[in-house]
Amino acid sequence: MAATATWEQALAEREAAHVEQLMAFLRIPSVSTDPARNAETARAAEFVAERLREAGVPTVEILPTGGHPVVYGDWRVGDDRPTFLVYGHYDVQPAEPLELWRTPPFEPNVRDGRIYARGASDMKGNLLSAIQGVEALARAGGAPPVNVRFIFEGEEEIGSPNLAPFVRAERERLACGAVLCADGGQFAADRPSLDVSTKGLAGCQIDLRTAAGDLHSGMYGAVVPNAVRAMARLLASFHDAEGRVAVEGFSDAVREPTAEERAEIAQVPFDEAEYRAQAGVEALRGEPGYGPLERAWLRPTLDLNGVWGGFQGEGSKTVTPCQAHAKVTCRLVPDQEPEAILDLIERHVAAHCPPGAEATVNRIPGSARPWAVDRSLPALAAAGEVLAELWGSEPVVIRSGGTIPVLDVFKQELGADSVIFAWSLPGSGAHAPNEWYRVEDFLRGRRAYAALLTALAEV
Amino acid sequence: MAATATWEQALAEREAAHVEQLMAFLRIPSVSTDPARNAETARAAEFVAERLREAGVPTVEILPTGGHPVVYGDWRVGDDRPTFLVYGHYDVQPAEPLELWRTPPFEPNVRDGRIYARGASDMKGNLLSAIQGVEALARAGGAPPVNVRFIFEGEEEIGSPNLAPFVRAERERLACGAVLCADGGQFAADRPSLDVSTKGLAGCQIDLRTAAGDLHSGMYGAVVPNAVRAMARLLASFHDAEGRVAVEGFSDAVREPTAEERAEIAQVPFDEAEYRAQAGVEALRGEPGYGPLERAWLRPTLDLNGVWGGFQGEGSKTVTPCQAHAKVTCRLVPDQEPEAILDLIERHVAAHCPPGAEATVNRIPGSARPWAVDRSLPALAAAGEVLAELWGSEPVVIRSGGTIPVLDVFKQELGADSVIFAWSLPGSGAHAPNEWYRVEDFLRGRRAYAALLTALAEV
Repeated sequence: MAATATWEQALAEREAAHVEQLMAFLRIPSVSTDPARNAETARAAEFVAERLREAGVPTVEILPTGGHPVVYGDWRVGDDRPTFLVYGHYDVQPAEPLELWRTPPFEPNVRDGRIYARGASDMKGNLLSAIQGVEALARAGGAPPVNVRFIFEGEEEIGSPNLAPFVRAERERLACGAVLCADGGQFAADRPSLDVSTKGLAGCQIDLRTAAGDLHSGMYGAVVPNAVRAMARLLASFHDAEGRVAVEGFSDAVREPTAEERAEIAQVPFDEAEYRAQAGVEALRGEPGYGPLERAWLRPTLDLNGVWGGFQGEGSKTVTPCQAHAKVTCRLVPDQEPEAILDLIERHVAAHCPPGAEATVNRIPGSARPWAVDRSLPALAAAGEVLAELWGSEPVVIRSGGTIPVLDVFKQELGADSVIFAWSLPGSGAHAPNEWYRVEDFLRGRRAYAALLTALAEV
Repeated sequence: MAATATWEQALAEREAAHVEQLMAFLRIPSVSTDPARNAETARAAEFVAERLREAGVPTVEILPTGGHPVVYGDWRVGDDRPTFLVYGHYDVQPAEPLELWRTPPFEPNVRDGRIYARGASDMKGNLLSAIQGVEALARAGGAPPVNVRFIFEGEEEIGSPNLAPFVRAERERLACGAVLCADGGQFAADRPSLDVSTKGLAGCQIDLRTAAGDLHSGMYGAVVPNAVRAMARLLASFHDAEGRVAVEGFSDAVREPTAEERAEIAQVPFDEAEYRAQAGVEALRGEPGYGPLERAWLRPTLDLNGVWGGFQGEGSKTVTPCQAHAKVTCRLVPDQEPEAILDLIERHVAAHCPPGAEATVNRIPGSARPWAVDRSLPALAAAGEVLAELWGSEPVVIRSGGTIPVLDVFKQELGADSVIFAWSLPGSGAHAPNEWYRVEDFLRGRRAYAALLTALAEV
């Protein structure tokens, strides 16, 4: 590889080639959830491995898991240097419903400075930015200034079922001082941000039964329990009338927001009217005593995701239903433990299931513990400085109501904290039709990774 | 037609032919709800008209309605004689699920004294019994001893949408002193019964919305209203914790059961353990202060027939649902009016819909007013005597938790009360696979109709 004076110059020279790489990557329909796409998903892993090799990474391997493989890379430059692990995923969400796409999801199309394609925002753009940043460092200096490892999985969009065991088994190869998570986003197009916490997740299905079969409401409606009525009572018992979770013990482990946390959140530019319009709701609702962002970022929730039971067709059917079902997930905050929360839900259901009904709580795999970065992590400050310089404004400290399960896995298995360093934007259709990513964010993301790794050599 | 000494003899002679008629009738798949069966349903109307003609009924017509036609018959024997209208229906429920039938639903099969076929119990057996009883009277006496009219509809199994307007338009042709309703059943195989009331019906669908679309529970679950949670609260508000309907004004028009009514119901042989086993429930539940049969027969109900909203698939989906739906029907007793009850539900929903949600109540056609026979009706006493004689035990007075809308229509439009005179048995699979009717009930039913019409000439 020919040496270049600076990584900035290396990136400037390769702009067109890097965009072309992204287009090629986006043409691979690596839909991990679709077995018919397994060959394409494997091809995406090969593509990423090839980009790592091309960037100069000396050790590149495609490592098997129980499902789609992990692309692993290792560039060790010296035992005296700190080591950083770049995390990302090369799989994408399904593109359906296809008829809602203006241009085909796997034929990337640039309009108004945006690349439209499935996976553009989540997260093939960010993934390549990180590799290309390292490539530029190597072209300028022969090698990156710190040890860099890479772990790119192919199952993020199906809940990373094989990642935790993989990380546990590969602790040595993945050992690092901190993780740079290339999967994530920014607060707004004109405002960089640092995301300092994500929520945990615990889910279950509640199955309720009152009789052996559905019954004629005329013969039995007045006389036997009704499963839909019992389920409604049970679901209504999960919150009090004001919106607080009413499951005993649910919030016991939760710390009240500190004055500092509340002040930090108060600094986040938040336009409630615009937020309501985005959500398509007339008024915000939730646990009393907390502002909207405080609720979304610091308070745990118990969410009813779905319910069904009895007759759901046209007209009426005079049936006394014998069973009803509900889907429940909880978004958790420190220091709630998913399995302990599901224990409490189980106890609540046993205590509140109306007489005449029997309800079972069936846990759904995919639990995740909440994550919050250690705010004194040097890489976090370094990331903030890079964002401020490249985006021209001080990053706002945000939190996430969503869940990135792998962050806690890295903390538990590698003892490594993470910095989320990524530029997906709100409204960019991450799991929706017409997904897009700004070309400028893609190009600047490469610079951000190169600048951050350079800065990290000094901390 | 050759005259026979007595109607009893006429019926005895024709046993085999009458069973063969029933088999032929059952072979016609007159599934009124299935447009693909329209020709068959029309053929069933022709078959019934032909049986009336064969019985000697002088005026037989197939009268059009907005849907399947009505088969009408009129045998006027004298202006000095009372007139009775026999009601029934020639359509049947769909036979699905076909795989649960031991023998094909439209190939009647006799096993252990039962005829198995769709429509055997509901109600082709009863319908033919009535015609054949009249036929026997004619063979013995040249004509029945009273004026007899017949109205057999083809839309009972789809809620008789065209019957009320038909009856209103044809008041003159249908004029009668009382109706003999051949659609109904007996309390038990060894116990004849007289059914003296049926409940009314009012139904609606509740559609509830909280946002323009489903939202990501991580981003919005803590901040916006949840449609499933709102629906659960709303549905739970329809009853108090003990099971009383909590809709304001719902029971205002309802009379408390009298001591006589309670005593009459207490005489009905009721085995709670057997009832529980039949229903497949562990315990009976319902409005406190009333026994099971009192609740089923004298107390109105608000039944939740179904509910749905949000995610209902495998695993979990972290969605904050924006809409939820519920099906509600009420079984009504005198003097509740269906539309007034739906007004109250509408008011209740407006008052109890949680903040942040909008709910609409959409009325479902098919309302029916409750019906109760005037206990002094002479035809009722006559029917009781016939049952006692032919079944060998005093009929028990029962009520029905179900609905026969046409009974109130006859009362309103013709000023005529009804006697339910039919022998469908509990557990005979009226709307289920392997429907059956006892051959002995079919043969005895013919005698019952002949005996009743004979008795009615004297009252």
